[in-house]
Amino acid sequence: MIVCELISVGTELLLGEITNTNARFLAQELASVGIAVERQCTVGDNPARLREDFLAAWERSDMVILTGGLGPTADDITKEVICEALRLPLEEDKFQMSRIEAFFRQRGLPMGESNRKQAMVPKGCVVLPNENGTAPGCWIQMDGKCAALLPGPPREMQPLFLQELKPRLAAYSSGVIVSHHLRTVGLGESRMAELAQDYLDLANPTVAPYAKDAESYLRVSAAAPTVAEAEALSRPILKKLKEILGEAAYAVDKTLEETVVALLRERGKTVALAESCTGGGIAARLTDVPGASKVFGWGVVSYSNECKRALLGVSEQTLVAYGAVSAECAREMAMGARARSGADYGLAVTGIAGPGAEGTEKPAGLVYLAAADEDVVLVRRLDTGRNDREYNRIAAAKQALALLRELICRGSA
Amino acid sequence: MIVCELISVGTELLLGEITNTNARFLAQELASVGIAVERQCTVGDNPARLREDFLAAWERSDMVILTGGLGPTADDITKEVICEALRLPLEEDKFQMSRIEAFFRQRGLPMGESNRKQAMVPKGCVVLPNENGTAPGCWIQMDGKCAALLPGPPREMQPLFLQELKPRLAAYSSGVIVSHHLRTVGLGESRMAELAQDYLDLANPTVAPYAKDAESYLRVSAAAPTVAEAEALSRPILKKLKEILGEAAYAVDKTLEETVVALLRERGKTVALAESCTGGGIAARLTDVPGASKVFGWGVVSYSNECKRALLGVSEQTLVAYGAVSAECAREMAMGARARSGADYGLAVTGIAGPGAEGTEKPAGLVYLAAADEDVVLVRRLDTGRNDREYNRIAAAKQALALLRELICRGSA
Repeated sequence: MIVCELISVGTELLLGEITNTNARFLAQELASVGIAVERQCTVGDNPARLREDFLAAWERSDMVILTGGLGPTADDITKEVICEALRLPLEEDKFQMSRIEAFFRQRGLPMGESNRKQAMVPKGCVVLPNENGTAPGCWIQMDGKCAALLPGPPREMQPLFLQELKPRLAAYSSGVIVSHHLRTVGLGESRMAELAQDYLDLANPTVAPYAKDAESYLRVSAAAPTVAEAEALSRPILKKLKEILGEAAYAVDKTLEETVVALLRERGKTVALAESCTGGGIAARLTDVPGASKVFGWGVVSYSNECKRALLGVSEQTLVAYGAVSAECAREMAMGARARSGADYGLAVTGIAGPGAEGTEKPAGLVYLAAADEDVVLVRRLDTGRNDREYNRIAAAKQALALLRELICRGSA
Repeated sequence: MIVCELISVGTELLLGEITNTNARFLAQELASVGIAVERQCTVGDNPARLREDFLAAWERSDMVILTGGLGPTADDITKEVICEALRLPLEEDKFQMSRIEAFFRQRGLPMGESNRKQAMVPKGCVVLPNENGTAPGCWIQMDGKCAALLPGPPREMQPLFLQELKPRLAAYSSGVIVSHHLRTVGLGESRMAELAQDYLDLANPTVAPYAKDAESYLRVSAAAPTVAEAEALSRPILKKLKEILGEAAYAVDKTLEETVVALLRERGKTVALAESCTGGGIAARLTDVPGASKVFGWGVVSYSNECKRALLGVSEQTLVAYGAVSAECAREMAMGARARSGADYGLAVTGIAGPGAEGTEKPAGLVYLAAADEDVVLVRRLDTGRNDREYNRIAAAKQALALLRELICRGSA
């Protein structure tokens, strides 16, 4: 398998002024054609350090892809440093020079002397035209290895990579890596990993656990000569893992909200929402899915007790006896949302997001969820144990969607 | 000046499954305390490569900060590899063990054997408690150098860094860089940059324009020996820029929703929401601000016409004559939200987020916003010209909050 390293060049990255999205884009694209990225590093606009890191990467790997530092200003040094390191002279590319001249003429802008530098390319390289800027990319092949120099701005780099470089990489690819993500909710990462224990040491596909935004995932990655063969390797493992994880494993490669919207659409059903501590977060998630309007038309963000009474019909007695953060209130909110909207399902959340727990003895992170259909109301208590407003809101929204999914699936079982 | 290198550990980063936001966060924070990041690199969950990269960084620099690989699973290897490289034994930290046990007890979850590994720390290190997860951070000082091991998930790493590590770094800092962000809405980046033109070439503070999520910012960064001196450099420039940009510059270092919640709290006023295409996005933004319950209690997500009629009192005639995406409908939604909730202000959004424009001749990106108080209703038409659901939803939510801000400020002028 071809081993590749990525080098991102730019002081703005080391100062934290921009996020390095190029590294992620290239890593994903390279993985998809079976080229493994073993290291990524970021250096500033410093010739000595760039030279050192480039030569180390060139030594260790088969392919080095650099982004950034191809601009017209004096601190753009990538081409000069790489040519010096590989002892390649720079020469003017006539076609690039005419393109750069045309670029400025078209825009009625004066062309600076510094822009001429952008038409200089390493001798013998393949020039990769840049449709969205003045810096062309370069593709260097020597000593059985290869290096690519790409512009830094993502809207220049991405199309250039896809149109010019990716087709050339096919020759180096020994196959593909296909990854799938088995998503779970409600288990926790360590419990999920324990259940999947027997699969975590597989060689191909590999199975790796990770956690993000109150969900836990298993990544199943298979390497094979073709996509079909990779899929054939992963399929039985994904099936086994789904069996082992049971209900908690809600989807492969799909978000919880996409899963719920799809379930509702399949069944021709609708849901109405009554949100307190999630503050519209469940509605925002559902309506992030194109086509959500087919299954969702009615939602209430009832931060106040008055709103819970007036729009959802929660009884005064419940609010006084149990408080707004209670199983009883969640149940009445879900039933009220369903009844008043005419939707098939009602989903409700009430809890304490934090920080702190204003005017109550209940702790931050305590949330009650309820999902109602014609026959039953499922009510669940969630206690995250965290005094973290953002986390609690995300966890409550996800657990609520998971509860709705449970109710939908149960109804149809 | 202290030289620092960052090492991000995780195969998920090399596969491009997640974007490395930790590197950016740390780079910014370290710059702010005068510590220069000279290199950042990312390695997978591979002991040999991590060892090699760590030792090279340790050799070259004064400080190495690692993120990731502290989790409970077998592929979490950072602590083990660093201890082996520095010849430090691992030992159990009793306090961490009791915290981890309590974490699981509180949640009623079974504690896996693998979680015990998270209480093992390098001998002699300072343990940095993690308030938001089970993996503590470690701060190692030896041979006149230092290394920090931090958890990978940003919501654990960021507070841990700010509370536990940043104060310890003061001893290594030779000065500070203080940045402020002057935020604008409704101008566009190039117009904002044109207005601020005379300030973009300053040396200290520097002034740099950038755009993100439908807003444009000017970053004003001053370098000085102390925070007070840096602030004194920035203050007059920020003042000038605010004058030049006028109404559009709504705040320094504060989000639009924080600005609106603060304005309402100052005046003792409340707002009710009626959202269509933003689908709860405005409610979710407002309720992201702690204390939002003081100013917001009532919101409706009216994706369907039935909901607009039943909960907001939009007239059938308006829906038939003008359609749901119209200035008239937005006006009635805002007035209805205000009247039915008893809030001081009503804020409404109706539009077409896309992709495509289902069953209408109106284009994706067309949005009507309305803000109502006792006396007036401001209605505004927004046309982003984009067929990008996510962008249109964000832009509509932000422009709606900006319209509310305008109405509040006008009322008090």
